[in-house]
Amino acid sequence: MRQGQAVANRASALRGAGALAACAGLALLAACSKPQPADNAPFANGEWVDLTHALGPETVFWPTDGDFVHEENFHGHTDGGWFYSSYDLRLPEHGGTHLDAPEHFAEGRETADEVPLSRLIAPAAVVDVSEAALADRDYLFTVEDLAAWEAGNGQLPAGSILLFRTGYDRYWPDRESYMGTALRGAEGVAALHFPGLSPDLAQFLVDEREVAAVGLDTPSLDYGQSADFRVHRILLAQNIPGFENVANLGALPAWGATVVALPAKVRDGSGAPLRIVAFVPEGTPPPAR
Amino acid sequence: MRQGQAVANRASALRGAGALAACAGLALLAACSKPQPADNAPFANGEWVDLTHALGPETVFWPTDGDFVHEENFHGHTDGGWFYSSYDLRLPEHGGTHLDAPEHFAEGRETADEVPLSRLIAPAAVVDVSEAALADRDYLFTVEDLAAWEAGNGQLPAGSILLFRTGYDRYWPDRESYMGTALRGAEGVAALHFPGLSPDLAQFLVDEREVAAVGLDTPSLDYGQSADFRVHRILLAQNIPGFENVANLGALPAWGATVVALPAKVRDGSGAPLRIVAFVPEGTPPPAR
Repeated sequence: MRQGQAVANRASALRGAGALAACAGLALLAACSKPQPADNAPFANGEWVDLTHALGPETVFWPTDGDFVHEENFHGHTDGGWFYSSYDLRLPEHGGTHLDAPEHFAEGRETADEVPLSRLIAPAAVVDVSEAALADRDYLFTVEDLAAWEAGNGQLPAGSILLFRTGYDRYWPDRESYMGTALRGAEGVAALHFPGLSPDLAQFLVDEREVAAVGLDTPSLDYGQSADFRVHRILLAQNIPGFENVANLGALPAWGATVVALPAKVRDGSGAPLRIVAFVPEGTPPPAR
Repeated sequence: MRQGQAVANRASALRGAGALAACAGLALLAACSKPQPADNAPFANGEWVDLTHALGPETVFWPTDGDFVHEENFHGHTDGGWFYSSYDLRLPEHGGTHLDAPEHFAEGRETADEVPLSRLIAPAAVVDVSEAALADRDYLFTVEDLAAWEAGNGQLPAGSILLFRTGYDRYWPDRESYMGTALRGAEGVAALHFPGLSPDLAQFLVDEREVAAVGLDTPSLDYGQSADFRVHRILLAQNIPGFENVANLGALPAWGATVVALPAKVRDGSGAPLRIVAFVPEGTPPPAR
């Protein structure tokens, strides 16, 4: 039973994106001896947005993978009289909102624990391809899609995290509409239909831009019908990681947000569950849709 | 085989904390049409520090818990000729660097997916209790330890993440020196010896300070010899989460860093693996030790 919503507690005042601003206000009212956040405090004016699907039994994994299992060890009152709960977690690396480490498709490249923070925390560009992608489940993002973004925002700066918004997160967690099929196993893989990067775009990013990472709101950097995973092979070979099954990209501006994408630090991991959030400074609202 | 260190790739220039500064420099040299990070870009001047132990077979879990298992699904060359690797993950919620969600000891309080970002991303205070804690494995941090920090730094502002540095991360992952015993099961629990918060300090934090979260570099908020877990019960009942088995707190200043602690978003989780990092602005070096 969840009592949380009914229980008054002092913590409630801390919730939500306004907490830091509220703290700053409180500090001004209090004794001058309180330490103030430095003038360069990184998150003083803006809002945090969560771009992560929760992990649960309904979480979408690849058709050949198993599901997320939350195995109860204990949940209830102990002999001592207090409540206690604890679980084990079991999940494939490549499902839900997750990191593709370069090693997933590129032998000897960085594993999940080795991806540097400079590739995980960076300014984010959001290229909205949702009109074409929602109209065509097999849509491949093109160099022209990036050019259209650059026409409005300038050339993508080196070190940016490049995110593609297809709008497919609206289908989560319904496998059939999200991936194009609810079938599992090899039969399911053959029936996958969802959009992704074109190999030409991936090669352009490697040759002509210096992206920190590439993410999107579908299950894979390569589109569902790919049989050779060329986008993965092109990007990951350059130690450019992928963020897959990202949520809520419609809440970000085309430019101006900073993404913080922190994977579980799995040694030798080809991937890992990813918690991805973004800081949106005041004055950079998402485009109206 | 790891070839990563020997392979020249364009990504190497992006690594490390200087990446954003380097990008800004590149942008200045390039066309004016490039978008610039906003003047209020949150991470322009400073360095990111990782406070997370990697998850591997050696990761320290509670004596009654199992170990981390990284189960290989595939690692090698496919019929198509390209390399591919993928694994399943299996782990208890409460080991390695991890979140204690309020629900762990407080029925109906927030679960791992529900802890608000305002409790996970906030200015950090680091109280160094290492001298006493390294001298006495059963040391309990006191209200006076916090008072000593406040004498030097001012009263702890509402909304801060409060971190205690015992220095025990130096023993990781040697169970005997880290936890006081290498025994497993109930026998191991009885033999645990490592420092933690006193219940009086936990109650003081609830009554007199508004902390966002409490973390430390030992396996538990309560010390090893605790049999009633009062610190957990006091803090978690107020929806104040815990960060346990944190690493590398000696790299942070007593005040001035911002912590970003992102747990895997486990629905109904009593805890979750945590990736915790900190941004240290220029001009706030850690104290000399």
